[in-house]
Amino acid sequence: MAEFSRYGSAGARVERIAKSANTSKERLYAYFRGKEALHRFVADQTLAAAVEATRMDATDLPEYAGRVHDYFVEHPDRLRLMSWARLESADTVASSYDPTYTTVQHKVEQLRAAQDAGKLDPSWDPIDILVLVNQIAMSWAGQLDLLQTAANQVRDPSLAARRAAVVTAVQRLFPATAARTTASTARRRT
Amino acid sequence: MAEFSRYGSAGARVERIAKSANTSKERLYAYFRGKEALHRFVADQTLAAAVEATRMDATDLPEYAGRVHDYFVEHPDRLRLMSWARLESADTVASSYDPTYTTVQHKVEQLRAAQDAGKLDPSWDPIDILVLVNQIAMSWAGQLDLLQTAANQVRDPSLAARRAAVVTAVQRLFPATAARTTASTARRRT
Repeated sequence: MAEFSRYGSAGARVERIAKSANTSKERLYAYFRGKEALHRFVADQTLAAAVEATRMDATDLPEYAGRVHDYFVEHPDRLRLMSWARLESADTVASSYDPTYTTVQHKVEQLRAAQDAGKLDPSWDPIDILVLVNQIAMSWAGQLDLLQTAANQVRDPSLAARRAAVVTAVQRLFPATAARTTASTARRRT
Repeated sequence: MAEFSRYGSAGARVERIAKSANTSKERLYAYFRGKEALHRFVADQTLAAAVEATRMDATDLPEYAGRVHDYFVEHPDRLRLMSWARLESADTVASSYDPTYTTVQHKVEQLRAAQDAGKLDPSWDPIDILVLVNQIAMSWAGQLDLLQTAANQVRDPSLAARRAAVVTAVQRLFPATAARTTASTARRRT
C-alpha cells in the first residue's frame, strides 16, 4: 500500500515492496502473478475497506459525506492510491467483475430506493447524486495544503470548519431524512 | 503536453518528447534545464490556459461551473496533466511564486469582494466556496466512464444532463446574482 500510494503502479518497484515485507521478489511472485496483479489486489482491498468504513446511508447523505471526509483525511495514503489507480487505469474498460462496478451499482440502487420511499429528492438522476456527494465529500481531504496557500484569507483554518462546510453543502442539496441522534446533530453547523 | 498527460512527470520520457517535436534531446535541454523544468513549464501553461478560458465570475458561479465542466470534458488531457501534477507534487510546498498560489489568492479575493457587495452568501468561508464550486464543476469531467458502469440505472445518459446537474447543484448552493441573458438561463434545469 505504501509503495503504490507513493509511486503509483508504474513507479512502484516490486523489489522495494519485497524488502519492506522482509521477503524476496520470488516469494511475492509465488502469490501474485506480477506487479499489476499485486496492485489490483491492494487497490481492491483499499476500495472495500473504504466502502465498509464509510457505509453510505441514502437517508443521511450529509453525515455520510462527513464520514468520507474524515476517513480520507485520516488515511491520505489510501486516497492517493485510489487517485493514482484512476489515472493509471484510464485506458482500461471496467468489467462487471470490477469491484468499482459493483460498488457503484449497489450505491445507485440504494439511492433509487430512497427516492422511491420518498426519503430523497426524486428529481435528481441517482448517479448524479452519487457523484456530487462523493465530490463534495472529497473536497478537502486531498488538498488541505490549499489552506496554507490562502492562509491570510481564511476565516477559520480548522479542520472542523472544513468538515462543517462539506456536511452543510450536502445537507443543502440532499437533506437528511433519517432520525438523528442529538450528538450527530450538534456536530453540524446548520 | 501529450506525454506528461499520458505518463505523468515521472513516467514521461524526454526522448519521446523530442522525437514527437522533431528535435533532439540536446536541443530540448538547451531551452529547459531538465525534465522537471519542462514539466513545470507545461503545467503552468496549462493552468493559465484553463483559468483564462473559464474566467471565474463570483456573481455567477453556476455558469462558471458549467464552463469548467465544458472545458475539461473537451480537454481531458489537460485535466489528466493537472491531476498527475497534484499527485506528483504532494511532497513539495507551494511557494508564493507558484502560479497555483496566485490563482487561489486572486479567486478567494474575488469571492470575498462579492460577499462584501452582498452578491454572495457571506456565511461561507470564501476558501470553502472556491473548493466546493471547483469540486462540483469537476464532478463528471474526469469520470464520464462511470456512466457506462451504471448504464442500466441512469435515467438520462446525455452529457447535457450531467452539465445540468453540475450547474443546478452550484445554483442551489451559491445562486447567481448577476444579470442573466435569456440564452444562458434557458440552458439550465432550474
